[in-house]
Amino acid sequence: MPQSSLDELIAALRCLPGVGPRSAQRMAYHLLQRDRNGAARLAGAVGHALTVLRHCARCNAFSEEEVCTRCANPHRDPTRLCVVETPADLAMIEQTQAYDGLYYVLMGRLSPLDGIGPRELEFDRLIARACDGEVREVILATNFTNEGEVTAHALAALLTARALSVSRLSRGVPMGGELEHTGIGTIAQALAERRAMVP
Amino acid sequence: MPQSSLDELIAALRCLPGVGPRSAQRMAYHLLQRDRNGAARLAGAVGHALTVLRHCARCNAFSEEEVCTRCANPHRDPTRLCVVETPADLAMIEQTQAYDGLYYVLMGRLSPLDGIGPRELEFDRLIARACDGEVREVILATNFTNEGEVTAHALAALLTARALSVSRLSRGVPMGGELEHTGIGTIAQALAERRAMVP
Repeated sequence: MPQSSLDELIAALRCLPGVGPRSAQRMAYHLLQRDRNGAARLAGAVGHALTVLRHCARCNAFSEEEVCTRCANPHRDPTRLCVVETPADLAMIEQTQAYDGLYYVLMGRLSPLDGIGPRELEFDRLIARACDGEVREVILATNFTNEGEVTAHALAALLTARALSVSRLSRGVPMGGELEHTGIGTIAQALAERRAMVP
Repeated sequence: MPQSSLDELIAALRCLPGVGPRSAQRMAYHLLQRDRNGAARLAGAVGHALTVLRHCARCNAFSEEEVCTRCANPHRDPTRLCVVETPADLAMIEQTQAYDGLYYVLMGRLSPLDGIGPRELEFDRLIARACDGEVREVILATNFTNEGEVTAHALAALLTARALSVSRLSRGVPMGGELEHTGIGTIAQALAERRAMVP
């Protein structure tokens, strides 16, 4: 293809996760042919976000302010701190409307094979945040994947050493789950962590 | 989520084809967290492409020039014009290195249900291009889908009425194809359009 700015557009679209050469080509043609307004909006939104978004000094989520509105909200319970891997996880917990404490977003998980260790995840920032004198309980809500579990265990060791109460989301059969379609690992866990029923 | 520029970025990413709310969120976090250079490049490439790319006056493909380098190439055969649906189709045919004529890119196909008719595809522009006095054969290389076939038949009627020779890519069993794994429609077509073998 002789058009260099088209090639550059296709190459740039491949910066997006999960976008290969074919998708990038399709996206480029779509933007140029069918949605030039959308393309202009995309260019503007990416540029604007890069300019104004940074990490909240308290929770590490993306924020336009030094401290995000959630962390600055005086109606949230400052004694509980929920640690999640990503902003998407935070959004999921917020949607439950079952938690009114504060958050800390790791922006990742321990992954030694990818070279992501405690230093890359800035564990010391989280420790400093959790040791602000107000936080009493740290709820570890990293994923129940191998890497998420390792991250939770590493953090639990560091946080309990600082006399903080540390908890983890419960594991078990999901809501609406049928045993027949639930993994045996989950069922074994749900058996081991069974709860007394109060009739 | 309280961050409006993040919301706007996620919404803007949904302009891309095949990108739903979850992917858009994942893409936004990826760009902001892991690939800010890529994000800046993307914003620039989209903006630049919107500014400099237009449609070639002859073949209708994207071009930075009034007439693209392919159409302006004197070594290509001006007597044959290959009609394709999209720039991606054109790129596929170029990769075969089996064609040295010129192209016309419809940028779509007839699709009455989507309101795309001869006017939207600017059939009159293609007719004018094919009637430049140099073109003798028009090769219809629209897809072998229902819509691509309808488009080819409609164009064939218009072009033969103007005393142009019109051909269509052959249909049949693909290279390396095994009959056992070939659709019966294709096999029926390959039977009906069988070719004499010259030993």
